[in-house]
Amino acid sequence: MRSADLSAAVQGILGGEMPPSHDDLTELYHELRQATSERWSRDLPFQDLITDRWERAAQLGFGEGSSIYQSAYVYGDVTVGAGTWIGPMVLLDGTGGLRIGVGCDISAGVQIYTHDTVERVLSEGRTGIQHAPVTIGDHSHVGAQSVIVKGVSVGDHSVIGAASFVNRDIPPYTVAVGVPCRPVGRVEVSPEGEVTLRYD
Amino acid sequence: MRSADLSAAVQGILGGEMPPSHDDLTELYHELRQATSERWSRDLPFQDLITDRWERAAQLGFGEGSSIYQSAYVYGDVTVGAGTWIGPMVLLDGTGGLRIGVGCDISAGVQIYTHDTVERVLSEGRTGIQHAPVTIGDHSHVGAQSVIVKGVSVGDHSVIGAASFVNRDIPPYTVAVGVPCRPVGRVEVSPEGEVTLRYD
Amino acid sequence: MRSADLSAAVQGILGGEMPPSHDDLTELYHELRQATSERWSRDLPFQDLITDRWERAAQLGFGEGSSIYQSAYVYGDVTVGAGTWIGPMVLLDGTGGLRIGVGCDISAGVQIYTHDTVERVLSEGRTGIQHAPVTIGDHSHVGAQSVIVKGVSVGDHSVIGAASFVNRDIPPYTVAVGVPCRPVGRVEVSPEGEVTLRYD
Repeated sequence: MRSADLSAAVQGILGGEMPPSHDDLTELYHELRQATSERWSRDLPFQDLITDRWERAAQLGFGEGSSIYQSAYVYGDVTVGAGTWIGPMVLLDGTGGLRIGVGCDISAGVQIYTHDTVERVLSEGRTGIQHAPVTIGDHSHVGAQSVIVKGVSVGDHSVIGAASFVNRDIPPYTVAVGVPCRPVGRVEVSPEGEVTLRYD
Repeated sequence: MRSADLSAAVQGILGGEMPPSHDDLTELYHELRQATSERWSRDLPFQDLITDRWERAAQLGFGEGSSIYQSAYVYGDVTVGAGTWIGPMVLLDGTGGLRIGVGCDISAGVQIYTHDTVERVLSEGRTGIQHAPVTIGDHSHVGAQSVIVKGVSVGDHSVIGAASFVNRDIPPYTVAVGVPCRPVGRVEVSPEGEVTLRYD
Repeated sequence: MRSADLSAAVQGILGGEMPPSHDDLTELYHELRQATSERWSRDLPFQDLITDRWERAAQLGFGEGSSIYQSAYVYGDVTVGAGTWIGPMVLLDGTGGLRIGVGCDISAGVQIYTHDTVERVLSEGRTGIQHAPVTIGDHSHVGAQSVIVKGVSVGDHSVIGAASFVNRDIPPYTVAVGVPCRPVGRVEVSPEGEVTLRYD
């Protein structure tokens, strides 16, 4: 490469005329994908490959050992206890105040809201946004794709079934499922840690 | 750095031997994340940080002031009126013709279809794809995670509850919820903009 | 640009002091977006633009002609037959063994699990993860946003409705819908490939 060519090329890079090429990103993608597959036996989307779930949680101030996938959305004031797992494609809305306990699983696709815009939309913007806080107790499991709306409390050691729509409080040690979500059983945990789901 | 090293390094960059490093993307991610957190009090996935919701909507020809998250998928012919908010993880299929009115909220995770491949799959490809248009009226609110299938019309000023499956027309000024989605009440908006949801 | 400036600039790039700029990624995004729009009449998220659905499937060992969107998550041991379409925002968990047949559609937002962590969470980690395999037969259609849990078999030529929660086996040639998902009709395919869904 002649010196003039070199200079022009570097100016091109520095001046933004030469963006990172598609091939360059593809090469990085394949390297990260290979490493992730070997270490974790999984194949993740690009943006999960270039980031770290535990680091994201730590920077959000979540409890020690918590993690949150890169595809999750976090709004406003969200408090999360230690050892809680937050899956991909989750939405956590803390604009009305959201507290999630320790040792929970917030499964993939779960959405938890502390506001809604229903009246604002219907009134053509003449009514404001409503807010109400949500609490998820310790050691609770929220199943995949479930939606929890503003004002709801889920007790400790409870299970929300997958694909549920939760618009009422769920007591502690309760199994609840459905659209809308209703209690259908109780959680029993023996002193040795054996779990029994006892259906009504 | 000696001149020969410099030349080799630049050739490496230009020849694609040196992709943008993982550290470089991480640095960009942290800068954008910090800025977004300070300005908007939220923490978004990488691809939402590097793009703009209003610009994407404008380039799709959506109405003034509309916005659409980066994680949303848009297929074919989709018309969207002014001031409509389209959330993350949404899928808008306009291959059969999709019209969304002004001032709507299309909540996170909503999927609206104007085609289906059920018969194509079952027939092992011997039957084609079916199409039928969908219309969402003005000032309507489609709740989180809901699925609307081909051929459905949702009237103006209506509310579709979260986690609903909509396979029939929903009239104007109607509250509808469930799997499958059915009307359960009426929307009343006073001349002053006060909203009342009156359940049957 | 003077030679000293040039040298400093290149050292900046090589030393990681100058990450790929936001403007550079934006330029790449717009180029790929334009090309995709012209070729496919669709507008996709950034990470889908920079990757290839068929290549990802091939590298996962999926059957010929299969494809999988970049936003999908794949865990553990997942086998997929030829000609199967796997949509955006899908989660395939093969940690307990997942086999998907040929010619299927796994619609957008579908999540298929072969493990669950319910007892681990409720027992505060004293009980392990449960696993059980899942099989999806050939030429079956799993509707958008549906969740299939561990231990379930879906037969050949069956249809799972959108927004379903599947926790029981579904026989072949069956239409099944709902939360929880139950059979509601039968699939008939004539020798000519004409499909009839006959509801009970």
